[in-house]
Amino acid sequence: MEKNWTSLWLKYHAKASRNNLKFCEMVHLDGFNERSAIISNALEEFFRGVNGMLGVKPSLIKEANIKNGLRILRIADEMIPDEGFRLTAEADHINIEASGENGVLYGIFFLLRQILMEKPLDGINITSIPDIKNRMLNHWDNLDGSIERGYSGSSFFFKENKILVNERTKDYARLIASIGINGVVINNVNVKDAATFLITPAYFDEVRKLKDIFAGYGIKLFLSLNFAAPLELGGPDSADPFDEEVISWWRGQIATVYEALPGLGGFLVKADSEGRPGPFTYGRTQADGANMLARLLKPYGGLVIWRCFVYNCTQDWRDRKTDRARAGYDNFIKTDGDYLDNVVLQIKNGPMDFQIREPVSPLLGGLKETNQMLEVQIAQEYTGHQIDVCYLVPMFKEVLGFNHQSDETIFDVIKKIGFCAVTNTGNDENWTGNDLAAANLYGFGRLAWSVSLTAAEIAEEWIKMTLSCDEETVSVVKKILLSSRETYEKYTSPLGIGWMVTPHLHYGPSVDGYEYSLWGTYHRSDHLGIGVDRTLNGTGYTSQYHEPNASLYDDIETCPEELLLFFHHVPYKYVLKSGKTLIQHIYDTHFEGVLEVEEMIRAWEGLSAKIPAQVFKLVKERFSLQLINAKEWRDQVNTYFYRKSGIKDEKGREIF
Amino acid sequence: MEKNWTSLWLKYHAKASRNNLKFCEMVHLDGFNERSAIISNALEEFFRGVNGMLGVKPSLIKEANIKNGLRILRIADEMIPDEGFRLTAEADHINIEASGENGVLYGIFFLLRQILMEKPLDGINITSIPDIKNRMLNHWDNLDGSIERGYSGSSFFFKENKILVNERTKDYARLIASIGINGVVINNVNVKDAATFLITPAYFDEVRKLKDIFAGYGIKLFLSLNFAAPLELGGPDSADPFDEEVISWWRGQIATVYEALPGLGGFLVKADSEGRPGPFTYGRTQADGANMLARLLKPYGGLVIWRCFVYNCTQDWRDRKTDRARAGYDNFIKTDGDYLDNVVLQIKNGPMDFQIREPVSPLLGGLKETNQMLEVQIAQEYTGHQIDVCYLVPMFKEVLGFNHQSDETIFDVIKKIGFCAVTNTGNDENWTGNDLAAANLYGFGRLAWSVSLTAAEIAEEWIKMTLSCDEETVSVVKKILLSSRETYEKYTSPLGIGWMVTPHLHYGPSVDGYEYSLWGTYHRSDHLGIGVDRTLNGTGYTSQYHEPNASLYDDIETCPEELLLFFHHVPYKYVLKSGKTLIQHIYDTHFEGVLEVEEMIRAWEGLSAKIPAQVFKLVKERFSLQLINAKEWRDQVNTYFYRKSGIKDEKGREIF
Repeated sequence: MEKNWTSLWLKYHAKASRNNLKFCEMVHLDGFNERSAIISNALEEFFRGVNGMLGVKPSLIKEANIKNGLRILRIADEMIPDEGFRLTAEADHINIEASGENGVLYGIFFLLRQILMEKPLDGINITSIPDIKNRMLNHWDNLDGSIERGYSGSSFFFKENKILVNERTKDYARLIASIGINGVVINNVNVKDAATFLITPAYFDEVRKLKDIFAGYGIKLFLSLNFAAPLELGGPDSADPFDEEVISWWRGQIATVYEALPGLGGFLVKADSEGRPGPFTYGRTQADGANMLARLLKPYGGLVIWRCFVYNCTQDWRDRKTDRARAGYDNFIKTDGDYLDNVVLQIKNGPMDFQIREPVSPLLGGLKETNQMLEVQIAQEYTGHQIDVCYLVPMFKEVLGFNHQSDETIFDVIKKIGFCAVTNTGNDENWTGNDLAAANLYGFGRLAWSVSLTAAEIAEEWIKMTLSCDEETVSVVKKILLSSRETYEKYTSPLGIGWMVTPHLHYGPSVDGYEYSLWGTYHRSDHLGIGVDRTLNGTGYTSQYHEPNASLYDDIETCPEELLLFFHHVPYKYVLKSGKTLIQHIYDTHFEGVLEVEEMIRAWEGLSAKIPAQVFKLVKERFSLQLINAKEWRDQVNTYFYRKSGIKDEKGREIF
Repeated sequence: MEKNWTSLWLKYHAKASRNNLKFCEMVHLDGFNERSAIISNALEEFFRGVNGMLGVKPSLIKEANIKNGLRILRIADEMIPDEGFRLTAEADHINIEASGENGVLYGIFFLLRQILMEKPLDGINITSIPDIKNRMLNHWDNLDGSIERGYSGSSFFFKENKILVNERTKDYARLIASIGINGVVINNVNVKDAATFLITPAYFDEVRKLKDIFAGYGIKLFLSLNFAAPLELGGPDSADPFDEEVISWWRGQIATVYEALPGLGGFLVKADSEGRPGPFTYGRTQADGANMLARLLKPYGGLVIWRCFVYNCTQDWRDRKTDRARAGYDNFIKTDGDYLDNVVLQIKNGPMDFQIREPVSPLLGGLKETNQMLEVQIAQEYTGHQIDVCYLVPMFKEVLGFNHQSDETIFDVIKKIGFCAVTNTGNDENWTGNDLAAANLYGFGRLAWSVSLTAAEIAEEWIKMTLSCDEETVSVVKKILLSSRETYEKYTSPLGIGWMVTPHLHYGPSVDGYEYSLWGTYHRSDHLGIGVDRTLNGTGYTSQYHEPNASLYDDIETCPEELLLFFHHVPYKYVLKSGKTLIQHIYDTHFEGVLEVEEMIRAWEGLSAKIPAQVFKLVKERFSLQLINAKEWRDQVNTYFYRKSGIKDEKGREIF
């Protein structure tokens, strides 16, 4: 490859078995226009993939009665809804049936995936319809080219306050379309400086180019918005959503935007959060703010996606009543039902902030009359900075599968609205820093499309497409991925307590790093025990859940142990279900975590002959950094709690 | 005043009693040239001061037999050494006798100080000779205008990689000359980027202007040097002091420098320290490095001032054998006697880094055959950032008066060489951020001149000159200053253990902030006790002292209690000489510290009518920040040790 970026899982340069050749020599279109952007891109993709993997150049033919080829057929949307497709093999050809152009594109990507994974297409008969409506990626890219919480280079969208549109842009669109993503927010939710001007003519020409590239792959482009834009762009001296001048300013601004950028998906807004302005500044509710914009976007079919990450970030550590975990629910539950139908609340999976283990946010499904989108983070802010391996699909599945009340899961709550991820890409050659971190991007897309896929199935797909179909490679890498989240959890903060990271950086241990801070992130450990009492006797956070979860979490005996310290302040000598004391569990898991990393490294090294040299070397380097990190976590956490509790490790291992 | 900076203690705009008028109406010079820079500046100062304070314009007269005036007389240096002066009052005139021009300048400043402090000159008969040879200030100013550890604005020497020469430069020279400073290093010891080029023609013209301004006030200008300059300025690809090419490069460079800047004092070098290159890089000793430069500077009369802040700054916190406190001594003692006579080792007062309480460095006076200069820091890096009041003269007096062996104090060790301070000035209007912090600059200069002055005497001088001669003002402010260091110590880290500050920033508490770091700065606390064992059973640091100090420090019973935790790991229940346990001492001092700050504030507020409004307001604002800081320290330290020890405060006060 001459390009300085990899093709990730669209590895068409790998030669595939020619068993599937018989379905790939020609293409016939029935009911679709070959010149429309999406169909044209779909065909180009098919030609490119088949040419690369099978070494043939398929021809587009007019006759419906084809042999050894692919027939693409438009059917009514009562049969297959938009975006879905049906793939059926007949003796000498294969059919993709779809009611919309997106369905064709996704069908082609499915077909190419089968070829890449060396799966025979013979006899195939599947119908595939996305499980979730909006499947989105949020980029935290800044216009200067930096990426907030980015661990894989700089932005490929922005550089020095200019927008980049180039070959990589299109490859990126292809990659994310191939996993079913249909929406992308290109700029950081913290909208400052030049980013505020994205909704002005200064950037329209380049944003339009981006929008059109994405549109050609069925992906809507969204912009993050600065709620204080009127003040910063020379409009009225207020951002009060009830101020007629403010409304009128926004009306004009939005009209200008949609005239220049028809089909724009809408706006993502982080308001009243971590120093960002919002409706609270003017004594209005979050709904007042969101609805003001939604009303103006309605004529253009635009969405307002409103983040719920609203909490007091100047808390006093001495204060044990204020509980950051409560804040999302407390701030939004009272506005349930107040939102217009083109407003979506975007809610993080947990009540804190993307820790390695959190309970599911009680706001998800706590709201009954409001559109809710689930937000996860595949950028590994707190989960290893794409240095440490941490495959997050198992966590995402836990969240989606969580029964927030007896007859409803989180998936049920969000399926008609959306699922989004703060993404983990940058301009590194391999896109994600650690090659293995790409499994999270791949996995997020695939899971959002098909929630019933297991974490193992997704991992296997990704390995086969990216690395190799070799059985040992698949088995070893799958094992690494599937165990990685628990390994990371073992050597970092225990049993749901979270944090204990180096402040600001969020990589590496600092047990007390956030203990006396303003951020509402405490472990409250003393010489007898550790944990935050969020029961009815404590902050009362457990009452935000429906039953039976509320009672389950509230009682130390029924609280799931992996979340024990999130909900309870627990003595070190408390005996867990394993028969171990809490302190011994802390010691054991921290020693185990390091051993498991060592095991992963040995397993990886065993694949040296089977993994592309460049990938093997880079991942190996990251593993050696992960091992250093794991040891530092082990030693600091164990030492901290040994020094504080005075209780020795039963096994007499080295604690400092 | 129209200038946007204050005149600090040269407050000539204050009207003084006219009692001293009779000595100020005319001046006669005998044996000195009125046109020489120093004499001309001295006369200008006299005219300005007398005009401002007494409202007369003195005339310079030719006749020796003057009335109502000042006679300046050159005498032989056997009578009064260079820099010294004798001031004697006769019935109708006053005499300044000196053997050198500097003596005249200092005599005039002395005289003006008497007038400012409303002290009658009648009957005066004093001889004043500086106690210490080199009395220097080190600026940590960077060429971009920032100041490392600067808490009072930006540099007034540098801005955007250019040198500033303006009216303020001269005022600064006047101010520091008035307190006897005779050497100044204008740039940061961490020499990087543009600063490396200060020894190249790019900066010569402007450095020359600075040098000449300072020379006119008897002050030598020094530059901090980058030991790796050959590599960075296009010289040889090495900085090995034994490499002939390197030596030859330096020879040429130094010749160029001294041709352009005759009279330059020499160079200050921080080598092999905190990432800076040095002779260790090439397997050479510190003496090899220093001597290489000294040999080349010798013909020009230049000094090499070589900092001894050499230690391992990537230590492993798990390692209890390596002791940063040992490093200075261990690295330098073996080179004692190896240095050329124009090399001076610059040694920090303590073995760590300017903490509020440290033992005196055993390297000071440990070296027997080497020129030693004492370095202190009046920039309040660890002592409150010039927000918190912390008058440091008492600490400096402790150091100078320390009997490092029975018949010799630190003052004896350094008096023939020098005493320097990392200074606390910047381009804030009041020069030092907190107006009260100027007492440290003033005090350092005065103490370096006259070591027997008490901290109280110096404080009183400074208050009278800067604020007011009003009795209550003097008494209240003196009390604030004199108690401030102990107050600061009380609410911060206890009994010599140091650190516990927010990493990097060094303001505000973080008990474990440096506990698991690479910096060699640990408190080693566990549930039973706290402190670092530096006895013969521990790191052996105590053995670096002469007797009786070595034994005194080594024994917990004889170790001075204010340094207890520096030398010993001590149980919380250990009973101090006060009868209190260690933990109770920690609680008590932290509660007391906050109460004392509150008391200071009340005392300051009582002076509202007596202090210039601007100063009163600014200091009051700083006090309110100090109170917040003190409370945060109190609560974090008490909470930390309560949680860790489980031992309650006997008095039942609030701990979190």
